Amino acid sequence: MSLFLKNCWYAAAFSDEVSRKPLTRTLLDTPVVLYRKEDGTPVALLDRCPHRFAPLSTGTLVGDQIQCGYHGLRFDTAGRCVFNPHNDGKPLASANIESFHLFERYGLVWLWPGDPALADPALLPDFFFLEDEENFRVQTGSLHVKGNYQLVTDNLLDLTHAPYLHPGFAMPGVTVAQQLAATTTKVERIGQTVHYHRLRNGLPPNQATIDLFDFPVEPCETRTHMHWHAPALISFDNGTRFEHQSNLEGFWFPQAHCITPETETSCHYFFAAARNLKKDDPHIDEAIMNVLVTAFRDQDEPMIEAVQARMGATGDLDSLKPILLKTDTAPVMARRILKEMIAAENDATADAAVAAE
Amino acid sequence: MSLFLKNCWYAAAFSDEVSRKPLTRTLLDTPVVLYRKEDGTPVALLDRCPHRFAPLSTGTLVGDQIQCGYHGLRFDTAGRCVFNPHNDGKPLASANIESFHLFERYGLVWLWPGDPALADPALLPDFFFLEDEENFRVQTGSLHVKGNYQLVTDNLLDLTHAPYLHPGFAMPGVTVAQQLAATTTKVERIGQTVHYHRLRNGLPPNQATIDLFDFPVEPCETRTHMHWHAPALISFDNGTRFEHQSNLEGFWFPQAHCITPETETSCHYFFAAARNLKKDDPHIDEAIMNVLVTAFRDQDEPMIEAVQARMGATGDLDSLKPILLKTDTAPVMARRILKEMIAAENDATADAAVAAE
Amino acid sequence: MSLFLKNCWYAAAFSDEVSRKPLTRTLLDTPVVLYRKEDGTPVALLDRCPHRFAPLSTGTLVGDQIQCGYHGLRFDTAGRCVFNPHNDGKPLASANIESFHLFERYGLVWLWPGDPALADPALLPDFFFLEDEENFRVQTGSLHVKGNYQLVTDNLLDLTHAPYLHPGFAMPGVTVAQQLAATTTKVERIGQTVHYHRLRNGLPPNQATIDLFDFPVEPCETRTHMHWHAPALISFDNGTRFEHQSNLEGFWFPQAHCITPETETSCHYFFAAARNLKKDDPHIDEAIMNVLVTAFRDQDEPMIEAVQARMGATGDLDSLKPILLKTDTAPVMARRILKEMIAAENDATADAAVAAE
Repeated sequence: MSLFLKNCWYAAAFSDEVSRKPLTRTLLDTPVVLYRKEDGTPVALLDRCPHRFAPLSTGTLVGDQIQCGYHGLRFDTAGRCVFNPHNDGKPLASANIESFHLFERYGLVWLWPGDPALADPALLPDFFFLEDEENFRVQTGSLHVKGNYQLVTDNLLDLTHAPYLHPGFAMPGVTVAQQLAATTTKVERIGQTVHYHRLRNGLPPNQATIDLFDFPVEPCETRTHMHWHAPALISFDNGTRFEHQSNLEGFWFPQAHCITPETETSCHYFFAAARNLKKDDPHIDEAIMNVLVTAFRDQDEPMIEAVQARMGATGDLDSLKPILLKTDTAPVMARRILKEMIAAENDATADAAVAAE
Repeated sequence: MSLFLKNCWYAAAFSDEVSRKPLTRTLLDTPVVLYRKEDGTPVALLDRCPHRFAPLSTGTLVGDQIQCGYHGLRFDTAGRCVFNPHNDGKPLASANIESFHLFERYGLVWLWPGDPALADPALLPDFFFLEDEENFRVQTGSLHVKGNYQLVTDNLLDLTHAPYLHPGFAMPGVTVAQQLAATTTKVERIGQTVHYHRLRNGLPPNQATIDLFDFPVEPCETRTHMHWHAPALISFDNGTRFEHQSNLEGFWFPQAHCITPETETSCHYFFAAARNLKKDDPHIDEAIMNVLVTAFRDQDEPMIEAVQARMGATGDLDSLKPILLKTDTAPVMARRILKEMIAAENDATADAAVAAE
Repeated sequence: MSLFLKNCWYAAAFSDEVSRKPLTRTLLDTPVVLYRKEDGTPVALLDRCPHRFAPLSTGTLVGDQIQCGYHGLRFDTAGRCVFNPHNDGKPLASANIESFHLFERYGLVWLWPGDPALADPALLPDFFFLEDEENFRVQTGSLHVKGNYQLVTDNLLDLTHAPYLHPGFAMPGVTVAQQLAATTTKVERIGQTVHYHRLRNGLPPNQATIDLFDFPVEPCETRTHMHWHAPALISFDNGTRFEHQSNLEGFWFPQAHCITPETETSCHYFFAAARNLKKDDPHIDEAIMNVLVTAFRDQDEPMIEAVQARMGATGDLDSLKPILLKTDTAPVMARRILKEMIAAENDATADAAVAAE
């Protein structure tokens, strides 16, 4: 029985992290080596030689193959041991290892740990803003978080934490109560995704955007919509428009948040943010990155890690019976969908095992 | 079944550690947040919000209440969730958390983890010297010891370790054998306390006190009486008098040693020492603190931690069947009393659970 | 049932590590204190006082005895508690502790954890080169490796890893395939030892020796013979000779590799290398030490530790079902012999326990 959903996409690395120098990364409790073929296609293999358990990532690339750095066995991109130097270079089928199905898009290398026949790029969220250079300037970052990956989802799908954890996002002269009162929220399940819509009306923009873009301190509409896809991919439609402006004319700040389990109690958190204003201003680049780093690394990450520490050795929040608030609707919905999907997958695996007997 | 005695006092912090800035401290395997009300009264609550398990200690005080730093739930000093900002500020009884009964005296905040109805300040040892500024100068310190708390009690209740571990307490020209021969010891159980009386006669004072107070190198009477109260509170009546002097006329150096379990294999060690001579001499303050720090932090603590390391993952010395010496009478008596008290408390809890069915 | 072979020699320390200052070292999961008697004989005792579990290694030597640094019990070299200062200096037989049989030779102190009656110095490999100062210059070193001790044996008994892990040992202008093709290997079991013979003919010497000794880049015979003795002692007969040279006339670089388990997943690795050329040249001393440190510490050790990390918490490689190659003949043979010896020893212990009932 797997702890993690298998037939789905996980962000394995940013595209620029994967090169002709093998990269090792633990994903879903499994050591994986990532590298690129000579034609640039990314490859992912189990990062453990079956002979003496050396990490293949300490080896070297020979064309598109990877050669173990301990005794020289070579594996092709499908994980087949195609060259044993100690037996006249013959292949050694018993030494074949697991390879992982990959797909590259949006500046990320995506890994599908389940059945490759089911791997469907259409299951990725539509992160269109990450490949529209004409309209958007994109910035990226990543965090290694010592907490279960779903704690990051919880954090994103309940933005009522913002006034408490992110005081820099406050609006000038607006109390927390006014801010909460001016926000309307709607949560919808659409298929196996969760749409968490939030609109704030009648308040000025937050101080950070006023500082960055010289916005007037006047009422505006701010949307912070989250679209969650299993297991932990979130498309965040964030924007601010003033009266008579369309969404496109206003400030658009869409983001991708992609969280991949490392172990039960730690994860890799990849984020990318795009903006449509002042796209070519390096000063704004720097200021935006400061805002993101402050919010995600200096405020969210320590909180998530403190929560994990209070949870002890388990990553399963539900087993600790948390009290639920109305504002937990979206995270609870996402957790339930994911739980159902993992259970269905485990059932199917068990059925297949029985049928195979 | 609890590993620790519940209906008793534990030192939680020195008074000056508890303020309007929340302090987190793990006591008896439980995360506790300590702070003061606006009127100065100390408060202790479970340091874990029941909603998403954030540590409340990272939150902020709103009057006498503490507000969670993640989503803003507020708790009063009794642990009641009195304000949910996401439901018009209404209370949320299902989110109430544990509060702990406190009592402040002797410059320490005392915590009673058991039934508050049983909490009796009269059960504290009489540390009168810590509040008699006219006659005593008090100095305090604390250690975080990576060893079971009872190992510290063992250390204190068998002072025959002094000539081996604390060579600075030797008397000039006196061998260890002479020192041991000149000391008479009596151990008594009085109710649920242990009195460990030690008198050394006919030898000069120890070198440290000769250096500090210009004592003559002449025979004196030195008492090192320990009075143990469960679970790990020791009043140490230490003094030296020369012929024709009363105890009060001689050097009086009474001490409080209060040890509180953090986990099974680590503890907080609070100590306070008072002296009746040269009370206003800062040079003596410094010299005394050096003596205490050398003995407790540089000599006792490493030994206790080395013992714990040799014991492995357990804090239960008895389970490892140590060889006992005559000099273990007091520590063994204290361990047995504490074991009986914990067993009685666990039996009573079990009986209550059965009666409640 | 013991995880380790008991009736055999383990290297406990280099001779110059054992002195009148007690040394603590964990061997076979057991804390051991090592020191020398006044006449220089080495002593090994359990490094844990049975009274309060203080490490005896923090105590002091009183003649040939060791005195506990906590309460002063004294133990003789046989582990007998011969002096209790708290009972008129009488012995305390119930406090006797384990002593270990030692033998000193080849610049090492050897420990026999099993039945001393069976301890036979003739069971040590013949490391003659370590005590022949006339013909050899000896250099030594040690590593603390975070890996099971048998992983080090595996590394040594299959030298086909050299071209992959130790590029500095390559021969000028020779490919890996040519190198492997020029090498003939023979593996023999002789009693309970393994002889792994390797000869390389027709290729020039490796670059490191060319640099050190100005060898010509001409065909030579290079032998890298390993002689393994349980549990993990290897005599390495390494040498290079040119046509018309005898082994003695050529370069002789014999080595001792002695690996001692610390825990299941860590070990102490003692090595000593002797050379017959340029014996008195300190520049060569330094260069040789650089070669050894590069190979053992910078290349072998990280690989062995990476392998252990991929194995997780177990030290038992076989339980993880590695794929075997032809080149594993020697390491597999050594593992099987050791497994048989440990099983036989455990059976004998169990039989003795039954007979004693």
